[in-house]
Parts: sequence; C-alpha cells; structure tokens
Amino acid sequence: MNPVSVRLVTMNSFEVETTQGVGRKKSFLQTKKEKIFRKKTLYSRLPILQWLPQFKVDNLLSDLIAGFSVGLTLVPQSLAYATVGGLPPQYGLYASIMGGFVYALLGGTRSLAIGPVALLAITIYPSVTKFGPQVAVFLCFTSGLIELILGLFNLGFFLDFISLAVIDGFTSAAALTISSTQLKSLFGLNYKSDGFLHAIVQLFRNINDVRLADTIMGMTALVALFGMRALGRVKVSGFSTKSKIISKLIWFVSTARNAICVFVCAGIAVATYDAESDGNLKLIGNITSGLPPFDVPPFQLTNVTTGEIILSFPELLSATGFSMIILPLVAILEAVAIAKAFAGGKKKVDASQEIIAIGASNVVGSFFSSFPVTGSFSRTAVNEASGVQTPISGVITSIIVILAAQFLTPYFYYIPKASLAAVIVGAVIVMVEYHVIMPMWRTKKSDLIPFATTFFSGLLFGLELGIIVGTFVHLFMMSFANARPPIEIGVTRKEAGATVVVQPRESLVFPAADYFSNIVKKAISKEEHVTTVIFDLAYVNRLDFATAKTLKGLSDNFASSNIEVLAINVMPKALEVLEGIQPKNMNITIS
Amino acid sequence: MNPVSVRLVTMNSFEVETTQGVGRKKSFLQTKKEKIFRKKTLYSRLPILQWLPQFKVDNLLSDLIAGFSVGLTLVPQSLAYATVGGLPPQYGLYASIMGGFVYALLGGTRSLAIGPVALLAITIYPSVTKFGPQVAVFLCFTSGLIELILGLFNLGFFLDFISLAVIDGFTSAAALTISSTQLKSLFGLNYKSDGFLHAIVQLFRNINDVRLADTIMGMTALVALFGMRALGRVKVSGFSTKSKIISKLIWFVSTARNAICVFVCAGIAVATYDAESDGNLKLIGNITSGLPPFDVPPFQLTNVTTGEIILSFPELLSATGFSMIILPLVAILEAVAIAKAFAGGKKKVDASQEIIAIGASNVVGSFFSSFPVTGSFSRTAVNEASGVQTPISGVITSIIVILAAQFLTPYFYYIPKASLAAVIVGAVIVMVEYHVIMPMWRTKKSDLIPFATTFFSGLLFGLELGIIVGTFVHLFMMSFANARPPIEIGVTRKEAGATVVVQPRESLVFPAADYFSNIVKKAISKEEHVTTVIFDLAYVNRLDFATAKTLKGLSDNFASSNIEVLAINVMPKALEVLEGIQPKNMNITIS
Repeated sequence: MNPVSVRLVTMNSFEVETTQGVGRKKSFLQTKKEKIFRKKTLYSRLPILQWLPQFKVDNLLSDLIAGFSVGLTLVPQSLAYATVGGLPPQYGLYASIMGGFVYALLGGTRSLAIGPVALLAITIYPSVTKFGPQVAVFLCFTSGLIELILGLFNLGFFLDFISLAVIDGFTSAAALTISSTQLKSLFGLNYKSDGFLHAIVQLFRNINDVRLADTIMGMTALVALFGMRALGRVKVSGFSTKSKIISKLIWFVSTARNAICVFVCAGIAVATYDAESDGNLKLIGNITSGLPPFDVPPFQLTNVTTGEIILSFPELLSATGFSMIILPLVAILEAVAIAKAFAGGKKKVDASQEIIAIGASNVVGSFFSSFPVTGSFSRTAVNEASGVQTPISGVITSIIVILAAQFLTPYFYYIPKASLAAVIVGAVIVMVEYHVIMPMWRTKKSDLIPFATTFFSGLLFGLELGIIVGTFVHLFMMSFANARPPIEIGVTRKEAGATVVVQPRESLVFPAADYFSNIVKKAISKEEHVTTVIFDLAYVNRLDFATAKTLKGLSDNFASSNIEVLAINVMPKALEVLEGIQPKNMNITIS
Repeated sequence: MNPVSVRLVTMNSFEVETTQGVGRKKSFLQTKKEKIFRKKTLYSRLPILQWLPQFKVDNLLSDLIAGFSVGLTLVPQSLAYATVGGLPPQYGLYASIMGGFVYALLGGTRSLAIGPVALLAITIYPSVTKFGPQVAVFLCFTSGLIELILGLFNLGFFLDFISLAVIDGFTSAAALTISSTQLKSLFGLNYKSDGFLHAIVQLFRNINDVRLADTIMGMTALVALFGMRALGRVKVSGFSTKSKIISKLIWFVSTARNAICVFVCAGIAVATYDAESDGNLKLIGNITSGLPPFDVPPFQLTNVTTGEIILSFPELLSATGFSMIILPLVAILEAVAIAKAFAGGKKKVDASQEIIAIGASNVVGSFFSSFPVTGSFSRTAVNEASGVQTPISGVITSIIVILAAQFLTPYFYYIPKASLAAVIVGAVIVMVEYHVIMPMWRTKKSDLIPFATTFFSGLLFGLELGIIVGTFVHLFMMSFANARPPIEIGVTRKEAGATVVVQPRESLVFPAADYFSNIVKKAISKEEHVTTVIFDLAYVNRLDFATAKTLKGLSDNFASSNIEVLAINVMPKALEVLEGIQPKNMNITIS
C-alpha cells in the first residue's frame, strides 16, 4: 500500500472533522475560557445520582467484602503513614474517615480508595516537624481548597506539563526518601534525620546502637510481606472445593498481608512483653482513643497549653507556601493517574470531577483533624481485586476505621514500630521506577535527562524542588527542539538559474527564526545564480510574529536581488499570521 | 498551479539536502558539540587579516570623515551615558577608548561602533549607586569574560530563546526608564530616584522647585534635536553646486546634532555665567582631565581613602550576580542585532565572532577604567551614513576621544546638565517600540502577551526582571501550543464497520499526550462499530516517550476490542521512538 495514496484518500473521500479547522478562528485560550464557563449539570457533578438509583442488594455483599478488605490494609497503613508525616499514629485514623463518605457522593471511579498516602505524608513532614500537628490540618484545608478551585474551573490541564519522565523520577525519589526515614525503626534506633542523605549518614553514625530484637522483627516482617505479596500471583489449578478454598485463602493472605503482619508482630510483642523495661521491642505506645473532634481547621498556630499565638495566618501562609503548591499537585497527579488506570482503557476519565472529589475530601476532612489525603494505588488495587461494585465500599472502609478508632486503640499500644516500618517500606519500595529506564533508553534517550534530574535533585535537595526543576528542564528541552526544526532544501538547476525549495518539516516558532534564516541564506549562497526561492510551508502549522518577520525579511532581500519568492502549501493558521505581516514580495498559495 | 503537484515534483526530481535526514542519527546536541570543538582558523577569528591587506589609501579619507562624525556624536553621548550609569562624566570617555582599537582587530562588521550605550548604563546604575564606580569596572571585566567564553564556545544560540517580542518590550521599558532618570536634569531639579515609577513620583513631589532656566534650555534642546534629526530626512533636489552644498550642510547638521546641541548650550552657559551663584544653569562641573590609568580591574571594593576592604571578592560576586547575567545578555543582543542590521541581507553574520569582539573590548577596557560597552545603534548608523569603509573609522573615533579627554575637559565644565539630558532623551525615546504593536496585532495577537509582560514588569519591577519574566512567559506559551496540536479525524463507514483516521498536524510531545488520547477515544466512542483505526503520522516529526506510550496504550486497548490499528506515513525520527516502545498491536508503515 502506497502511504501517499492512503493520505490522499483520507483527505478526499472521508468525512473530516477538525479540532482546529480552517474556518474556526478560535484560539485554544478562547475554547478553554468557554469550557470554564460552560455549566456542568448537577447530574454530572454528583455521580452518586447516577449509580445509587441502580444500586442492587446483590452489590451490597460485594461492597462489604471489598470495603472490609481495604479496611484491613488501611488501618495499619494509616498508623504507619502518620509516622511518615511526623504525626502521632491516631492522626492516620483521623485522615482515613471522611474520604470514603465524600468520595461516595462526588467520585467518578467506583474503586478509587481515598485516604492517607506515603507521598503526601512525606511532603508535610518538614512542616509538621517544625510546627506540630496543627499545620497538617491547616495544609489539609488549604490544599483541598486549591484542589476544589482547580477542579471546578477545569484547570487540571496544567498537569499536562508535568511529564511522565518527571513523575517517574519524583515517585522513585520519594520511595527512597520515605524508605530512608523508616531505617531507624527497622533497626530499633532513635535519631532525627532530614532528607535521604542525612538519614543514611545518621544510620551509619548510630550503627553501634542497633537493637537485635527490632532488627530481626523488621527484617522478618519485610521478607514476609514480600512473600505474601508474591503469593498473590500464584495460580491454583483445579475446580475441586479444596483447590477453591486454597485459592481463596491465598488471595486473603495476599490482600490482608499488612494487617496479618502487624497482628502477628503485635502478638509476639505481647507474648515477650517485659513490663520493667517497657518491652524488648520498640512499640508505638499510647494512642489517643476515640473519634477526632469536629472543629474549624486552625488558621493560626497556637501554643496548646498557653493559648499564645506562635504563627499568625500570614506567617503560616508564607511558612507553608511551597507545600501548598506541591500538595495539590501530588494529590491530583496520583488520584487522576489511579482513576485512569482503573477506569478501563476506552472510558474517558473526567479529571475535573476526580479533582473536585479529592478537594472536597480534604476540605471536609480538615474539620475532623485530617492531614492531606488522596487516592491510594495499593488500596484501590485491593478494592478492585475484592470485587468492588460501587463507592459504598469506601463507606464500609470508613466505618471500619471508625470502629478501630473507637474500640481497638488500646490494643494498638503493642504494635512494634519495626512492623509498621516494614509495612511502609513494603508498600513504597515498589514505587522505584527502575523499569522505565530501559524503555526510555530504547525510545527516546533524551527523556532520561528530566527523569534523572528529577530523581537526583529530589533525592539530594528535596522532593518538591525535584519536581519543579525536572519540569522546567523538560519544558526547556522541548523548546530546544522547537529551536532546530528539520529543514529540507531542494535545488533544481536550469540554464536560466537555480530554483531553491525550502521545506521546514515542523512549525516555525521564534527560537528557530535565526537558524531558519541562516540555513536559507547558506543554501542560496551555494548557488551561482538563483531565480526562484520557494518556501514550501506544507508542514508549518504555526508561524509566530518573529518567524513571519524572518520570512518577510528574506523575501524582501531576495526581491531586491530579483529573485522570485513563492510560499506554497500555506496552512490556514500560518496564512493568517503571514498575511498580517504583509510580505509584499511574496506570492502565497494556500494548501 | 496545483500546490500538491509542486510538492511532489520537489521531492522527486530535485536534488534534496536534508539538515536532519533519514540516515543521520545525530541529535542536535551532538552536532552542537562538534561545532564547539571544530577549530576556527586564526584567519576567520582575526577579521583584520582579511580587510587590512586590501586597505587602500582612498579608504582612509572616508574612514577619517566617518570616524570624526562618530566622534562628534560619541563625546557628548559618552558624558551623558556615564551620568545614566550613576558615574562621573569622565568615565564615559574612559569607556569610549579601547572599543575602537579592539574591534578593529576582532570585529566582523565594518560599521559597528562600539562604546557606552544607554541600555548597559541603566543596567549598572543600581550597583554603582550602591557601591561606587569601582563596581562598574569590575562588571566590565566579568561581563566581558562571560561574553568571551560564550563567543569562543559558540554558545550564543541561547539568544534564540529571547524572542523579538521580549526584546521589543525590554527596549521600550528601558527607553522610558532611562528617560525618567533624566527628568530631574531637564527641569533643573535635584533628587534621588529608583526606577521609573519612583522617578515620576519624585518629579511631582519636587515640582515646586523647577528651575526656569534649565527647563527652557532642556525643552528647547530637545525640540532642536528632534528638528535636526528630522532635517536628515529632507531631500534637496537639483544638481547645482549650491544645492550640493546645502545637501552636505543638512547632512552635517543632522549627523552632528548632539555635538551642536551641547556646544551651543555650553556657549549660552558661558555667556550667562554668573560666578557668584556658580551659573544660572546646572552645569556638569569639574571633570578629571587626562587619560584613564592602566590598572588591573578591582576584584574587591576598597574604601579609596582608608584602603579598608568594603566588599570581598565572593561578596562582590553575590552582590552583582544578577547584573553579571543581564549585562552580557543585553550587550550581545544589541551588538548582534546591529551587526545583522548593517551586514546587509544576504551576508550571514558570524554571531560568535561579534560576541568575541565585544567580550574582548570589555575585558581590555576594564584595565582602563571602562564600564560595560557594546555596539551602539545610533553611532553605527552615523558611521554607515558617513561612508565608513573599514574598522579604521573606529580607531579614528577612539583617537578623537583621547584628544578630548586630554585637551577638552576644562571646557566641559560649562556643559549644562539639561543639554546632556536632552541628548539622552533624544537618543532613547525613539527606542519605544510602539510601532510593533499593530503588526503583532495583525499577525499574532498572542505575541503581544510576552511583549506587554516584559514591558510592564520591566517598567514596574526592574528591567532585568522584565526580560527574564517575559522570556519564561513566551517559552511557556510556546509549550502551551505544543500541548494542543491540531488533530484531524476522518471517518469512513462501511457495512462491516467504521474506519477512523487520526491525523495530528504537528509533532506529538508530552504535554499533548492526554489531550491526544482523549480526542481519539471520543472519536471512537461516537461510532457504533469500529473495525480499523489509522494513525496517520505524516506531520509528526517528533514523538517522545510519553506520546509513544500513549500510542501504544491506545493500540493495546483497541486490539483488545478487535480493532485493527495501523500507523502510516511514519517519519524516520518518530519511527525510531515508536519502535523503541515495541507496540506489538500496531502495524507500522513508514513514509
């Protein structure tokens, strides 16, 4: 099949729809504006109105099982992630309650499980260690508000500028940073650390104080977690009752591995408990029992005992400004990525709706002492695998957390810190995206630059800085490509003189202006006598003021040397720009 | 003429040269690297070796006249621009000497006149008012060194990323800022001001102290300067001796207008001088006579009387860091723009050579107390109009400045400040690029955004910030266009089902990944039954990791619904990327 003929067939006999066609003068900005003000109906903004009327009682059992399975993962993870954020463990429970209810009302993806995640916890860690738990609740409210605004005004498109390479670099650096914070608990040590490198340095400084009991428990738990995880991939053949039971059992062990791990470790801690030395293992200790109080989130930081104001509202804003930008970014990136992954390939995800749901969960949660939350990849996977039918599953999960906070906290006293550290490391270490390196190397090696920039600067100078530096580097590299478009030069020589055809194979924008001009001049200067210069703009979708001026400048120069100048195959958008500059020495033919 | 057939002819029967052709795997970065290390011969790096052997005695007279004409403009301008930079007037003379000699050795454009310019003077002004004249010499050396490095390693390409719109916005804001600093001299006032807005505010605060004599002289001088400038455009018809003499006279008055203006004003000052009140007009007063001393530029700031160190070298570096980036940028932009404007349309300017010449002039000049210099648009125009033949003209100009510094400084005492202010305003006010607004409006309205951003942020928050913010805004806008490429969708419906053809009309890079995926999914979901999806990549010169992954993801999804997926007309660079991602469910045909 001749490719050219295919294209011609395409353009002639097909019904053609154009996103930015000939007659439409609307710029992208204009259509965006219209989109912002286009009213979304209440129906599409409250997905519960779509699925609740169709809810069947059969679904309830599925959702009960799924919700309970997620709860078994969530409770230990929530305690663990609170410690990643530098908060007392009960804050993890507080952060796990409201998301299920709010997402049931507003969320567009049935299986998305919302709650505390490691990435957000590590992001609030620096502020929390400086200013205490109040700032976590403040950040939950403000980041939620920003998310709500972004979602309601369809501003999520800015995420397009954060590339996959940057996201992978960020996630990998975050996974290592989070794991590094857990090293002390894995080895029964007690020190403060600030960032990945410092954590490693501190570990080696304190290596002589390593406690044997904690280390054995931590390492065993980690190995057990990976083992139970791998178990989930084992397929049991046969259709006998026995093999069915074994299959179910394997699935349960794999799904509830975090709860099993913490439960077994706590059991060992109870059995070996020695009241005099307060146990041989480091335990998480007393957890405040009960539900979080309903309270307006703090807009200034006060000393809890004296009531004195430590940071006023403006001071709080400037002290947390950087986190306020990064938290919504990370929360949205993670939630939208999960929604897309679990929505199925052909269904289009309404990103704005997901952003609204996350934002509302955070705003509402901040009235119940929550720290920032978003969708969790691991728990969403558990939810999906457990046969979730509707967001009722999330409500069930929330109820389980409420029950745990109300009745189980006295027993949480005995959970060894090492077991929670193992839960965290087991969950995040798989986020190190080493497996993207080879495909990037094969496809486009230069994409490894933003990946590596984000990864290393995130690891060395802080995760927030990494994502920002990486994004700028990638956008700059993209501009770089715009600066050097491929240009084909064709020459035909006749007795009267040469005809030079110049065909840029991409849009011409300002960083390419001088380069283009030099290439053309060089090509002309090689010929003895040029009679005609043809600019074939068939591939030039965009011109801007600078490159249009360059074309005009070239044609004026050539005209003064009696060279005829033609511009052919001019696309509609380029034509508009070219006509604006009024190149009187150029004959223009449209495509 | 059918445009399509023209293109086919072009591609088949023409001799085609490709800048980034099929077989060549070299990336832009690689070719850049080679360029950097490609040795330039001494011959091309010392342009004097090209023109000096061909120098004829006839040329000498032309160069004498041109050099003298430029000198007449340079002497008053140099005194004036020194005051723009916050320096004593003699520094203007110091900055006007070495450029002519160095450029004669290294410069590639015969008419380019190097020396103090208003844009660089206003850029050093904040540092000079803070730290005194030593810092100007330090900045001359460091900016010169940076320019030398950029030139020798061919790194001038970074200028491509500063768009015409940003340059125009910067120049306009600078012209207004410079003019605003001269208001006090035009009205005989005495106050300090910092930036455009502050200067306007200060003028109105001090409006009651306006001195009549200075105001009348300033305004008259300004009007006279514009009048003499306009005179240059008057054409005298006829070939009689009389009309020839008139024509020459008009040309002289127009060319030497700055010198005439200052000379006449100084004459009036002498005539009306009143020794008791030290004159009725504000005069520039005593100027240190003689040539600048030869001295190593200062690398720390010392108190001139006590010898105490005020700022050490590292402190100096950090205090002037921002200026050190902006000065080379502005110097190079101006010099290269002038070289291009005066080199003639068909000659390719060797930008690196110009950058080297400017850098060397600054480095050498800094040993003679020069502040940063570059090419001057107005004086280059005078040089060209006066019939310059070779860079000997610049040497003549330098000799005139040396003579002026040696013998004329006592007479400079009587130059009224208002006349110098008029010279400055008369020179810079034409740099307000209001005339680019209409062409931009007609061609590409969105280019007005970086223009206006640079202009207003430069005016309100400082010129340096303006150029940086404007550049980022423009690059971001360019990325924005990459995020929403035009995509054509063609559908043909047969009994067996529909075939959907998707043709992006530009390269697909990461900000477009989700948008592209959504457009395609929407198009497919509109059809009842799709049998085939064809990605026509004829216009896609570049793919990156993210968009290649999107294409693979789409084809895997479609394949799972038994939709055949074809990619046709795949360009060589896109093919490389696509093959790297191994899309096993996609049939690929190259273009």
